[in-house]
Amino acid sequence: MQPTSPRQGSPYPGLMMDFPLTVQHVLRRMEGIWGGKKVFTLIDPDTGACAERDFRDVVARAGRLAHALQRLGVRPGDRVGSLAWNNAQHLEVYLAVMSMGAVLHTMNLRLHGDQLAYTVDHAEDVVVLVESSLSGQFAEVLPGLESVREVIVIDDFSNPAPELPSALDYETLLEREDPNFEWPHLDERSAAALCYTSGTTGDPKGVLYSHRSIILHALAMSGADVYGITSRDRVLALVPLFHAMGWGLPFICGLVGSDIVMPGRHLKPGPLARLIADQRATWSAGVPTLWLDLLQYMDEAADAGRSHDLSSLDTILCGGTAVAESLIEAYKTRFDADVIEGWGMTEIFPGATVDRGSMSAARTDGGTRRKTAGRVSPLYELRLVDVDGTVMPNDGVAVGALEVRGPAVASGYFKSDAATAAAIHDGWLRTGDVGTVDSTGQLRITDRAKDVIKSGGEWISSQDLEVELLAHPAVREAAVIGVADQRWGERPLAFVVLGAPATESDLKTFLMERVARWWVPEHFEIVDEILRTTTGKFDKKILRAQFDERH
Amino acid sequence: MQPTSPRQGSPYPGLMMDFPLTVQHVLRRMEGIWGGKKVFTLIDPDTGACAERDFRDVVARAGRLAHALQRLGVRPGDRVGSLAWNNAQHLEVYLAVMSMGAVLHTMNLRLHGDQLAYTVDHAEDVVVLVESSLSGQFAEVLPGLESVREVIVIDDFSNPAPELPSALDYETLLEREDPNFEWPHLDERSAAALCYTSGTTGDPKGVLYSHRSIILHALAMSGADVYGITSRDRVLALVPLFHAMGWGLPFICGLVGSDIVMPGRHLKPGPLARLIADQRATWSAGVPTLWLDLLQYMDEAADAGRSHDLSSLDTILCGGTAVAESLIEAYKTRFDADVIEGWGMTEIFPGATVDRGSMSAARTDGGTRRKTAGRVSPLYELRLVDVDGTVMPNDGVAVGALEVRGPAVASGYFKSDAATAAAIHDGWLRTGDVGTVDSTGQLRITDRAKDVIKSGGEWISSQDLEVELLAHPAVREAAVIGVADQRWGERPLAFVVLGAPATESDLKTFLMERVARWWVPEHFEIVDEILRTTTGKFDKKILRAQFDERH
Repeated sequence: MQPTSPRQGSPYPGLMMDFPLTVQHVLRRMEGIWGGKKVFTLIDPDTGACAERDFRDVVARAGRLAHALQRLGVRPGDRVGSLAWNNAQHLEVYLAVMSMGAVLHTMNLRLHGDQLAYTVDHAEDVVVLVESSLSGQFAEVLPGLESVREVIVIDDFSNPAPELPSALDYETLLEREDPNFEWPHLDERSAAALCYTSGTTGDPKGVLYSHRSIILHALAMSGADVYGITSRDRVLALVPLFHAMGWGLPFICGLVGSDIVMPGRHLKPGPLARLIADQRATWSAGVPTLWLDLLQYMDEAADAGRSHDLSSLDTILCGGTAVAESLIEAYKTRFDADVIEGWGMTEIFPGATVDRGSMSAARTDGGTRRKTAGRVSPLYELRLVDVDGTVMPNDGVAVGALEVRGPAVASGYFKSDAATAAAIHDGWLRTGDVGTVDSTGQLRITDRAKDVIKSGGEWISSQDLEVELLAHPAVREAAVIGVADQRWGERPLAFVVLGAPATESDLKTFLMERVARWWVPEHFEIVDEILRTTTGKFDKKILRAQFDERH
Repeated sequence: MQPTSPRQGSPYPGLMMDFPLTVQHVLRRMEGIWGGKKVFTLIDPDTGACAERDFRDVVARAGRLAHALQRLGVRPGDRVGSLAWNNAQHLEVYLAVMSMGAVLHTMNLRLHGDQLAYTVDHAEDVVVLVESSLSGQFAEVLPGLESVREVIVIDDFSNPAPELPSALDYETLLEREDPNFEWPHLDERSAAALCYTSGTTGDPKGVLYSHRSIILHALAMSGADVYGITSRDRVLALVPLFHAMGWGLPFICGLVGSDIVMPGRHLKPGPLARLIADQRATWSAGVPTLWLDLLQYMDEAADAGRSHDLSSLDTILCGGTAVAESLIEAYKTRFDADVIEGWGMTEIFPGATVDRGSMSAARTDGGTRRKTAGRVSPLYELRLVDVDGTVMPNDGVAVGALEVRGPAVASGYFKSDAATAAAIHDGWLRTGDVGTVDSTGQLRITDRAKDVIKSGGEWISSQDLEVELLAHPAVREAAVIGVADQRWGERPLAFVVLGAPATESDLKTFLMERVARWWVPEHFEIVDEILRTTTGKFDKKILRAQFDERH
């Protein structure tokens, strides 16, 4: 399994072509058989106007960009940064940089300035492509960056970039280049992209994806029971391209030939509702909050006598945090759309578990349905270990630390031996998630390891409590943390955002019927908002700090 | 692209796990998350009784078999032969031999004795596993085989094997072994299986599949638009396991978790109809003849007042020869089953083109629907070349020789440099098929290169003529060959099997309206049967010989 293990098995290599798994195969499919497929980019949230470009043109422009980057001195292995929302140009940057043998660092625009600068310094980006609406943000960090030789501004149709006066213009660069680029032969194990985790503690850590891992992930996800995207789908890519390769959607859509709808930076529910309705999007992926906001917007719009036809929606993949059963029900009832859950990480791509297939079957099994994050996907292997690292059974009962392995799983972090050593255990990656796996490979995440509440020698799952609270009709959002307790060690404390009136007592009574009595928090804090991390997860570090300050 | 090309691109390898793509990953999924899935093997065609075994048990028995083979001296790289129909034991042999690092030679039981012996000698099989019903056939060739040290007889519940008195008994061997086998670490490029082409000319040629190619093929086929098999499917594996890895079904079903129904040697339409009805098979694959026979049987059964409920059938994958439009219509109308076409070869696996997805959409486009063999699948790349080897456009019009490349495409033949040299052209495999590819990757096979009819300096497609003849309601089967003609060089001659009365003149009139006038054959031979090769294709070599003898 490990790189150091000796070659075993048959001394005969199979007589099959040594055809590398690289992004260039996707590029050739997009240029060839899927040349007529479209990328729509929302450019005016008020009118819903989209820029439209077919795959053939996207690839031709990627060819021009590769020439331009080469002319700017970008060589194989060089890191090239992108700071952009989801649009056709970002897709061009993906294809060009990776296919020419350079490494695309997808910069997380939600990082604070110093963290953003840290990632560019650490990656040693030589060229950075910045969307014009983000040029102000980038101009603030640019003066301190040593590796960046050139900045290219991508005009997103809305915003000039006076903050970056010496930057090159993307369209001007492309105009003077030839669309035909002779893509070099690439080793499938060579690096294609670099994405930094946005952990709430310590410096961001870099995950260096190989071409092979990107293609294998895309293949595994294209399964009928996994993402299930087909050439008749029109995929709305809400999940940012800077999060774990946009959950692989650029490559999956390029392989299977589905149209792509890009929302640009317009992620408010109004523009999204119109975009879905106008472009007849069938498949989408994003964090649950977006879908919750969209639902609320649809209610308000209906009250105001406006409506959008979202009936084209067929499948919505959610990940990042637990999904409320009420959200799943609402999308099924109102739009006949299936909300499916998945689990992944920057280090392992999204979709390491996902289960489009048995979703409907499982739904009839009400009580357990919402608790699964899906079944382990092809090419992924999961195991649970206890605190000593001993492997535990996949019986759906034993709760353990989750470890994963496979060809699309990180073996370490870029230029960080210490983080690598801490992450790898016996050839498996420690995910930092805690949960159960049943005998059919269904994963149930009960917590992040650091969020588990240790009370009276037992574990309480903060996530299970959140899911139960979300089942209450008045609860819009819920986050549970552990707080110090003299008698029990820790006790749960619930932060709740209400959508309708409810008292602490109501919530306690509600929980009493649903979880063990000793799990029910003594204290609730009714708040207007719960802060989230840049990836849409509750920022429990801040919640804990807020609590500590007051007590 | 080629093994000899220097490593290029990023000097940084991606930091992803070096996790090998081997059959062991399928085995672990079958043992773990899909342990409860079933293999049904038909053992009594009269009653429909099936032997039933779950995947967990299949893997445990594969572990026992691996111990037994190891005890018999089988070492990594050794070739182990199997001579069997489709049953659970053959699946166990697949998993055990490949996962232990040996190479499974799936012997083609339809080969003549001397050809069968040739393949065993050429493969240097050290152990052969023979199904008891085939023991007589094997006993005839065994005395001349030098490499075979042991023969193991698999009891198929019906037939002792007195012809092989010194053979070992499969069940006895398994009984005394431990089910837990420590599968060795395997290199993904090591050989896993060996399958000989059953070409109508020359000696059979060996295709040596690597673990990598088997897994990549299975992943590509699991796509929603490709085979589209899910964990809710129950797959009837009609295509023999000795034909191109059973079209990959053992691995695909093991990856995605579908039940498998094995017909044993009972391929007559009566037992098959009952098997489909009893086991509620949803997905199947096989040559068109089987499906034609089944349809005819259903008619006769209905006339006789019997019926079978085939409504569970959802998808039928056909390949090998062109499929008549009437067959597609009949299965859709009568059983609401989609018959989809694919194209492949032993050298490239099946499904290099297949298009489950846009089938329904294309059906509305009547005239062209039946002429496509599907769209090029992920991981495959196709091109057309003319007689000089110059690449031709994929415009749906240009007819050329088809070449293919990809990680599941043979780079040569086992121990045959001459055949290898003849097969590979500039890094692509010459398929020997002639056709068109349109701009969306839809393949239309017009002929085998050797079957094209050169008439008056132009090409006539024998296959197109066959498809048009099959559209005539009275025509049950049709095969067209080219015969020497003084004036035109060659002219088409049609062999036709009728299912209802029709005259040569009827058929000519019918064709006149459907193809160019000069394509219409001057002569027809109405025959009772058209001989087929062991893979179910018309044996045009014999048809030509029959014609030559008489003229």
